[in-house]
Amino acid sequence: MTKELILEKQKQAVEILKEKDIDMWMTFVRETGNIKDPMLDMIVGTGATWHSAFIITKEGETVAVIGSLEKANMETVGTFKRIAPYLKSVKEDLIKVLSEIDPKKIAINFSRNSSLADGLTYGCYLELIELLKDTPYKDRFISSEEIVAALRGRKSTKELTLMKDSIKETLSIFDEVTGFLQPGKSEKDVAEFVRNRVKEKGFDFAWDEEHCPAVFTGPDTAGAHSGPTDRKIERGHVINMDFGVKKNSYCADLQRTWYVLKEGETEVPAEVLKGFNVIKESIQLAAKAVKPGMKGWEIDNIARSYIVENGYEEYPHGLGHQVGRVAHDGGALLGPRWERYGNLPYMELEENQVFTIEPRLTIPGYGIATIEEEVVVTKDGCEFLSDNQTEIYIIK
Amino acid sequence: MTKELILEKQKQAVEILKEKDIDMWMTFVRETGNIKDPMLDMIVGTGATWHSAFIITKEGETVAVIGSLEKANMETVGTFKRIAPYLKSVKEDLIKVLSEIDPKKIAINFSRNSSLADGLTYGCYLELIELLKDTPYKDRFISSEEIVAALRGRKSTKELTLMKDSIKETLSIFDEVTGFLQPGKSEKDVAEFVRNRVKEKGFDFAWDEEHCPAVFTGPDTAGAHSGPTDRKIERGHVINMDFGVKKNSYCADLQRTWYVLKEGETEVPAEVLKGFNVIKESIQLAAKAVKPGMKGWEIDNIARSYIVENGYEEYPHGLGHQVGRVAHDGGALLGPRWERYGNLPYMELEENQVFTIEPRLTIPGYGIATIEEEVVVTKDGCEFLSDNQTEIYIIK
Repeated sequence: MTKELILEKQKQAVEILKEKDIDMWMTFVRETGNIKDPMLDMIVGTGATWHSAFIITKEGETVAVIGSLEKANMETVGTFKRIAPYLKSVKEDLIKVLSEIDPKKIAINFSRNSSLADGLTYGCYLELIELLKDTPYKDRFISSEEIVAALRGRKSTKELTLMKDSIKETLSIFDEVTGFLQPGKSEKDVAEFVRNRVKEKGFDFAWDEEHCPAVFTGPDTAGAHSGPTDRKIERGHVINMDFGVKKNSYCADLQRTWYVLKEGETEVPAEVLKGFNVIKESIQLAAKAVKPGMKGWEIDNIARSYIVENGYEEYPHGLGHQVGRVAHDGGALLGPRWERYGNLPYMELEENQVFTIEPRLTIPGYGIATIEEEVVVTKDGCEFLSDNQTEIYIIK
Repeated sequence: MTKELILEKQKQAVEILKEKDIDMWMTFVRETGNIKDPMLDMIVGTGATWHSAFIITKEGETVAVIGSLEKANMETVGTFKRIAPYLKSVKEDLIKVLSEIDPKKIAINFSRNSSLADGLTYGCYLELIELLKDTPYKDRFISSEEIVAALRGRKSTKELTLMKDSIKETLSIFDEVTGFLQPGKSEKDVAEFVRNRVKEKGFDFAWDEEHCPAVFTGPDTAGAHSGPTDRKIERGHVINMDFGVKKNSYCADLQRTWYVLKEGETEVPAEVLKGFNVIKESIQLAAKAVKPGMKGWEIDNIARSYIVENGYEEYPHGLGHQVGRVAHDGGALLGPRWERYGNLPYMELEENQVFTIEPRLTIPGYGIATIEEEVVVTKDGCEFLSDNQTEIYIIK
């Protein structure tokens, strides 16, 4: 993450604070080498050892209240205009800064709904309340989730350019995989091939390397969120892979589906083709409905219903999530109204958010058909960022 | 982290639960790809997307309540005996498991004192309380900090073997640095040399690569916790470096000091030698006092007082911290009784804990003298794990 991009996002944060009429956004952390607030990379650009408060105000001030030993580092990083270093306790300096600004509403880094806005640990929260117990500020806290959702969701032109590039690089590795797939190779072989290509090209992984890529061949596979196994590709298998690179701090997240022809087969069996096409069509139907103001569950419901109407079981997850600095990014989610998704499916879509669309269905006896594309929400609809998979890839 | 080591630590956790009479230890998490509880690597060995509870009981049961999509992955990882997968909400399964075990005391992953025991975010805490609001269990929570401190602190024979190996590899790179240092090279040059050696050898960094190694040359440097700068090594500089590799999941954390002879100089100036020796002696004095039952602040005070008595300013940090899976590990700290360290300096030392001892002092006009060694607490004292630096290294 470059200083330039951090300053751009800080500026955007100030605009969001104005829009939402929040006086101050404070990210309170400690020992980020052990557990790191998910927003630090985007708005600070370094970590902290002792209790530290990274403050951005509606007036555009930025203040870092940090341990004195980290002052020089913070100056080198250069992303905060004012540094308030302390030796023995953060208390005095923090109260001084708060008193000077005297914010009426302070967004802090906790959220029930969004893990990205929830970097404040419970122990740190208790500490913060104790530090401020004789001040009015402890009663002025609100969740930072609205700020974080807007800041991460609304991609700048520069961010969209970087994301398109990560998608392009990811699809290029998918193409190489098509040449690599063969009966007899295992899911682990395929994953190793992909991981080596990512490393040779100097990219990072969009999510943890053990599951990036996730590769599934044939019927009765381990299912999404599993690592690759020793299971071997056989003729008659449907293969799918979930994969993305992270390049210049931005992630891609895509899936593609292949079919391995049986001996003597010259084309894809009808039931495989049907499954693939239902997935493909459900993506197009969902994408057609995406526009600012729609709610995520409404979009999810379109693809989910189409798949069920075509005689398949509904997929056991959301239709899509936002992508950005992390693979599961942003607030609003294209998900069903299940309790585990909290309020995310109810949030309205906004311009410049980037979503995956990734339905799945099981083709009995063959495997799982999935396609995952990425779209960006535009003023009155959406555009695909990824070149769509329109035909199932055939392995001979 | 191998499955074997995880199962060993789980077994140790059960012994600790018995010793402390705690019925259950529950680590509650979500979206660990975005923010990861620091204990997951040690006791689980994989992450989780949806709200998940990783439970270890005094009776030796292990239960993972996780999203159904992650069941297969959890089975492959194979570290939890029982898996309770859920589709729509964690609530029902979690309450079912709690009701079956009916724990009187439940340690959960929060702590004001220890970041390693504080992986529960405030949003997740609120969610957990809401999920369990109609049960008695929400009133039975205590902090997991005692368990975490004991589990991370008390190293097994296998862990100590791995740690000695990481120390040996780190010191071997320090030796190479002695051959590399020369007037005209910058702090960044030195850091790059070290980072390349770490990568060539296939190790990881004990802490974030931007500050590992930290390199400081001459007077008025940026100070600890800063990244290396363009400042160049000059004759008459005292140089110090803070560095450690992570190998087989275990970190080393060491510091060494060099002096660059001036033109015509044949030996180290008296004031440099004095500063170095005061550091060296303060480490030996502190180590002599280390034994089970002592409190960290008592050890810190020995080195701190010795340095002040010799006419130097006291160091603006603790004397030492525990090391292990992370560079700043464990609970008890060899630190002063400053508010920012919470209760950690008051905790009693225990057998098989590994501590750094790392005092520092400024030699005016030359630079900073620091040595950092590692010791393991034994039944009635301590032993050095690192071959001590006994003489300042001379660059001609």
